[in-house]
Amino acid sequence: MAPKMLHFVTDFFVYETAKSVVVKNWTVGIINRFVQLLIILYFVCWVFMHEKGHQQRDTGIESAVMTKVKGLGYFNNRVMDVADYVAPSQGASSFSVITNMVITANQTQGLCPETDEKFNCTTDHDCNKNNSSNIGNGILTGKCLNNTGTNSTGMCEIEGWCPAEDDKVPGKPMKEVENFTIFIKNSIRFPLFNVTRGNFPSDLDQSYIQTCTYDPKDHPFCPIFKVGHILKQLNQSLDQIAEKGGEIGIIINWKCNLDYDVENCKPNYFFTRLDAAFEHSKATKGYNFRFAKYYQSEDGAEYRTLHKAFAIRVEIIVSGNAGKFSTVPFLINLVAAFTSVGLATVFCDIILLNFHKGADEYKAKKFEEVSDIVQEESKTPYQGSQASIKALGKSSNDSGTFSIGRQEHIPLRK
Amino acid sequence: MAPKMLHFVTDFFVYETAKSVVVKNWTVGIINRFVQLLIILYFVCWVFMHEKGHQQRDTGIESAVMTKVKGLGYFNNRVMDVADYVAPSQGASSFSVITNMVITANQTQGLCPETDEKFNCTTDHDCNKNNSSNIGNGILTGKCLNNTGTNSTGMCEIEGWCPAEDDKVPGKPMKEVENFTIFIKNSIRFPLFNVTRGNFPSDLDQSYIQTCTYDPKDHPFCPIFKVGHILKQLNQSLDQIAEKGGEIGIIINWKCNLDYDVENCKPNYFFTRLDAAFEHSKATKGYNFRFAKYYQSEDGAEYRTLHKAFAIRVEIIVSGNAGKFSTVPFLINLVAAFTSVGLATVFCDIILLNFHKGADEYKAKKFEEVSDIVQEESKTPYQGSQASIKALGKSSNDSGTFSIGRQEHIPLRK
Amino acid sequence: MAPKMLHFVTDFFVYETAKSVVVKNWTVGIINRFVQLLIILYFVCWVFMHEKGHQQRDTGIESAVMTKVKGLGYFNNRVMDVADYVAPSQGASSFSVITNMVITANQTQGLCPETDEKFNCTTDHDCNKNNSSNIGNGILTGKCLNNTGTNSTGMCEIEGWCPAEDDKVPGKPMKEVENFTIFIKNSIRFPLFNVTRGNFPSDLDQSYIQTCTYDPKDHPFCPIFKVGHILKQLNQSLDQIAEKGGEIGIIINWKCNLDYDVENCKPNYFFTRLDAAFEHSKATKGYNFRFAKYYQSEDGAEYRTLHKAFAIRVEIIVSGNAGKFSTVPFLINLVAAFTSVGLATVFCDIILLNFHKGADEYKAKKFEEVSDIVQEESKTPYQGSQASIKALGKSSNDSGTFSIGRQEHIPLRK
Repeated sequence: MAPKMLHFVTDFFVYETAKSVVVKNWTVGIINRFVQLLIILYFVCWVFMHEKGHQQRDTGIESAVMTKVKGLGYFNNRVMDVADYVAPSQGASSFSVITNMVITANQTQGLCPETDEKFNCTTDHDCNKNNSSNIGNGILTGKCLNNTGTNSTGMCEIEGWCPAEDDKVPGKPMKEVENFTIFIKNSIRFPLFNVTRGNFPSDLDQSYIQTCTYDPKDHPFCPIFKVGHILKQLNQSLDQIAEKGGEIGIIINWKCNLDYDVENCKPNYFFTRLDAAFEHSKATKGYNFRFAKYYQSEDGAEYRTLHKAFAIRVEIIVSGNAGKFSTVPFLINLVAAFTSVGLATVFCDIILLNFHKGADEYKAKKFEEVSDIVQEESKTPYQGSQASIKALGKSSNDSGTFSIGRQEHIPLRK
Repeated sequence: MAPKMLHFVTDFFVYETAKSVVVKNWTVGIINRFVQLLIILYFVCWVFMHEKGHQQRDTGIESAVMTKVKGLGYFNNRVMDVADYVAPSQGASSFSVITNMVITANQTQGLCPETDEKFNCTTDHDCNKNNSSNIGNGILTGKCLNNTGTNSTGMCEIEGWCPAEDDKVPGKPMKEVENFTIFIKNSIRFPLFNVTRGNFPSDLDQSYIQTCTYDPKDHPFCPIFKVGHILKQLNQSLDQIAEKGGEIGIIINWKCNLDYDVENCKPNYFFTRLDAAFEHSKATKGYNFRFAKYYQSEDGAEYRTLHKAFAIRVEIIVSGNAGKFSTVPFLINLVAAFTSVGLATVFCDIILLNFHKGADEYKAKKFEEVSDIVQEESKTPYQGSQASIKALGKSSNDSGTFSIGRQEHIPLRK
Repeated sequence: MAPKMLHFVTDFFVYETAKSVVVKNWTVGIINRFVQLLIILYFVCWVFMHEKGHQQRDTGIESAVMTKVKGLGYFNNRVMDVADYVAPSQGASSFSVITNMVITANQTQGLCPETDEKFNCTTDHDCNKNNSSNIGNGILTGKCLNNTGTNSTGMCEIEGWCPAEDDKVPGKPMKEVENFTIFIKNSIRFPLFNVTRGNFPSDLDQSYIQTCTYDPKDHPFCPIFKVGHILKQLNQSLDQIAEKGGEIGIIINWKCNLDYDVENCKPNYFFTRLDAAFEHSKATKGYNFRFAKYYQSEDGAEYRTLHKAFAIRVEIIVSGNAGKFSTVPFLINLVAAFTSVGLATVFCDIILLNFHKGADEYKAKKFEEVSDIVQEESKTPYQGSQASIKALGKSSNDSGTFSIGRQEHIPLRK
């Protein structure tokens, strides 16, 4: 038992290393080193320096956005303030600034004619076909209300909030929106690295924050954005967006290399049209929504004022991507780098064994053939094996990288 | 100095390649190629074709959603339009369509009895215990209001908006919700690849968009969804969801292979119950919320109408996953593939060196033993080393893959 | 043709394996095994067990949150209920609980003096300079209203909603917010693995859910959170946050190892101040927003009550990270592990070939030199190659891992 055990231990601590053929040849040597250099440069410059292959990445950013709009404008001979034109009012990451409205005042439930020309009619029959569709301001009763005695000027009757909205009346948009400012407070966290950052430095003093406006060059960390500046950056016409509404995005991009000081982890702001994907689409330009203010008269009857609001919808989109050194991706890329350096050998072997003058000699040195050994059993093994060292032309794409444990003992020949 | 330098350069440009043993044996050769083929097939079919191992992935999709609900329904003998039943009205990615309401009109601040039977009482003492809990419509005053002279029919008195809401009154839900349509405009961007896409093609003409309704087969890119169709897909009863409310999700999934034309990057729509995880839970079925409309009488007294609204809450959830060829993951997987092909050698070595007839001969060829070389220093090295070529049975799991630079010069023997 | 074809096939099925040098030396053998052990331990313990290198990760969690606030409080001698203090009312993942308000009642459009001392004036000229800024309650008319005959007590006149808001009037905050409860229903899905989970087990009975409050130790799965408990965890003063408002985040973290039973995939709750990044900033403490309730008098004149609401803003932030065994990352890490084990050989080669007693002998065995073979062409190749076996001191960092296919046939020598 004991000798067997000892033998096992002896075998286990035997050291095995690959036998190499060393070729003293300038051409191949230089090619080899040059290919290796290219591979190393690729890994150092591209994989590690540019693609940050040694870093673990966190894109699951946690973000909280608080916004505050400021500004005053005229609409319909009234001064509009924040409570009038921002909806919803809570200062979330998505809000609308109403710039134009079609107001239909004092609506009550009842019967009245439609307003859109789609509902023109001459007989009651014309008012039955569109029953199932969802267009229109109310439910069609099936009657055609002929306002005058002549034909073709009639309108279908609807049941619903009356009078029906007539959105063809042009409003005069609130162009002062150009000077409105949006204050953005954005607090983010990269959960993987437990790094919390705010979109403006904590040492920014209050008076600066109250007076600055964002500018990519001069005030890159001022968290106050002028609507006019954003529209200008987007090449968007103020007249058009104020009249028909639109959607703009403020993208706050956090691209942080946390291998450096966390103070360098700062936001970048980009502006975008949220409907950029539909730029060339004929359908659905602008942005509008309907809301109503409800009133009750002294006698308890409910009535409302319907607003079709054309608004600039602003969405603050926060995206983040932080990287920090981590052993796992680093090691994987490092091992890939080392292994790739070995590719140079493949390349040089091809040259050496095929296109070089002494190719046959190199082959003879690199490959030792063992064939039909069983038949040569009678000869001395060393003669046999020496005899089998031949120049070989064979295909091989093996790496011979691994050889896992064999632990039995085989007695020495002699 | 110069010769040393020259020597260093000569050594540096020496080319080293692994010495191989070539075995001309059909069994092992075929096994080797077959195992290699399996490994190559695994990488080509699974890693690269199925798992897209050559692609960099972007899951940090930036998305903007705009929605618009259309439809008209009856509730409480009134015609309800969008301004009445959609909350919030701005057309964001999350909104509620109110289908049923418990309306408590003309509430004013004051004292009144509770309505829920939990607040039944016989003496004032019964009305003190629940003080700390948050159930109930107002703050308990501690009095028990005995409406009639008999016992057990009393109710605790509360301070708050009176009269208290009695939500046991059944409403008649607005079943027309079945025919309501939801228009969804979704614009997304993959920031890593700077690809912007919309959920319907820009060449879709306006008349189609205004008349189509989504159907997975016939109209997969129509951005208008019928509520009834969604409920049907989810096997959800219209009666139940209209009465008690519910939560449905419209998942827009962007799975894009950006190696192909970006035009192939199109959305897929899935419908889901947002409370699917709580399907078997006894608690909290349905969805409702409370809101109030505030009025002021001529004398300045404020009063309100409280609404307990049962609604279908719709959330548009956008998820995305784009892949594009990138050198870093491609190279890592390629190197892993090449290295794995070497595993075939491990497998074949085991067969060849253990289970094959001429195993001993193969071992003699593959392994060259060097042992106690120091003691054999007196002999000529070549005799010594030749003598040390023996059949070996030793454990080995080394790969011998790397050997880093040694640059000193050692003079040739002899 | 046929013999050539046969030859090609014969060559293709030749098996090639690396020739190894086996060193029976205790020192190097033990060092080799020890270094290999370290590398294996690193991969097993760190890469696979700690960093879960064998798992595919999904961080693109899909989440739906439903909230419901309960509680009653006093503000301004009125009882406030949910419909009064929660905005928006729909129970989304982000909402505000109003705890304090500056109420400016009965505003109508008109002219009136400003209220803030920034608009103090003595002459009309003082009221022209701030025209372009967005501070103030209305649009400056340019007039200075001298209320009294003496100087310096005047105020600029504005056009807008009058009377102007005077937010210096201190309110008495609703401190009962401490006892308010927030019920959170969170349903998540990991799209990659198609796993749906809810934040409380479906076997939790309704009575428990209605009465419990969350506690990290005793009730970790109770979905009801007491506001006072959250503030306590955050070391936030109730008095301050109730008076000036604030922002708190409830982070629901799903960290799931889906290799185990999905029942173990449970949420963790964390509380955070959303303005944590601005803790040391002098600017912008607290949280407030303005909204208005609109009324119409019998004669059709619109008036409103402006509210500057100080609120506790609550955001439910859901983040998730699920891992599940996947062949691709597993294989990449496994191949990296195997390849790294080969690094032990590099290390041992350095010791063996440089610092060991018999270094020269080892070199002679490991490296076979081939140089100037072309010149030695006349000699018998085997003599020549034997003569070229020398002790070498050369730099080498090649792995010799790959050698791709060469398929031409070269006749055997002699």
